[in-house]
Amino acid sequence: MNKRIDENLRGAVPLAHLFLRERVKAGDRVVDATSGNGRDTLLLAQLVGEGGQVWAFDLQEDALTATREILAAHGVLGRVELVLAGHERLAEVVDGPLAAVVFNLGYLPGGDQRIITRPTTTLPALAAALGLLAPGGLLLIVIYTGHDGARAEEEAVTGWAAGLDPRAFNVWACRQPNRSTAAPYLVLVEKGKP
Amino acid sequence: MNKRIDENLRGAVPLAHLFLRERVKAGDRVVDATSGNGRDTLLLAQLVGEGGQVWAFDLQEDALTATREILAAHGVLGRVELVLAGHERLAEVVDGPLAAVVFNLGYLPGGDQRIITRPTTTLPALAAALGLLAPGGLLLIVIYTGHDGARAEEEAVTGWAAGLDPRAFNVWACRQPNRSTAAPYLVLVEKGKP
Repeated sequence: MNKRIDENLRGAVPLAHLFLRERVKAGDRVVDATSGNGRDTLLLAQLVGEGGQVWAFDLQEDALTATREILAAHGVLGRVELVLAGHERLAEVVDGPLAAVVFNLGYLPGGDQRIITRPTTTLPALAAALGLLAPGGLLLIVIYTGHDGARAEEEAVTGWAAGLDPRAFNVWACRQPNRSTAAPYLVLVEKGKP
Repeated sequence: MNKRIDENLRGAVPLAHLFLRERVKAGDRVVDATSGNGRDTLLLAQLVGEGGQVWAFDLQEDALTATREILAAHGVLGRVELVLAGHERLAEVVDGPLAAVVFNLGYLPGGDQRIITRPTTTLPALAAALGLLAPGGLLLIVIYTGHDGARAEEEAVTGWAAGLDPRAFNVWACRQPNRSTAAPYLVLVEKGKP
């Protein structure tokens, strides 16, 4: 794989992908907690290689269908377990330790905007993900701010991240100051190495 | 070089290093605008390899002496031009296009805290650096907030970054919400690719 990435860092998803490319290596176990259109799942499947394992969750059958298609088209479907369930069931299904877990909070692009992630399920899922991270593992949370209920979720997630023990977790919130405050942004949690 | 980095992302300098590892490749031209203790210069010299070129600026002879020693100890001094001058002279000395330019704003760790970077020279230097960046090149600014005059410099730099044209530059400000608001943080400017 070319070390120089092909994407501009024009949004929170490409920024999250830069971190994944830096950290996830062949043989790793990783989770896409919100598979959506499958683009994060595809990158994860490519990075972990044949010996790795990806779990991809989504509540919506349409999302998993789109994800299955993009994975099959790239010949990496065999590395991915698709789970038709909300990410709150992450801890039941996934075996750690995990090199990375990715959340996209909001709604499925092009899908039903009434079906959104909610703090009541998101916060337990984030906590479960943190518990499964390997030392040096990354939790990447892309936060969308445009939809109904987004503000409450955003405040819940950023409050949760701000409260994490700085001796155990390195937390970064990355925003784009030359774009609208409504632009999606990235919260990154790294489980510190001993 | 091992793809998995050895550092925790415990502060703004390790975060800046992650971006450098992801973007800077063999043969690149890069600048350390504030060589300080030489740790950024060393990483840059290692990343650009034998065919690359690093320019390292500092106003203080002590900083360049420390930088020269660490570079020589790692056998990479020949790739680095040490410049005893403020970074405002960057455009006079450096030939672009540059893959990366690194600024650490504040004072030399362990040095004279009265000798600090100042907005009157920092802002023109940042503008000059931006003009020399290659498409896809990164300007990384680590901002320290503890010293006298820090607040004014911080506001000048973040205001400058927030005013950059979003069609031409991808700007990210990364802060640690689970640490003191006085913790150093990172501002990243990517020159977009066409």
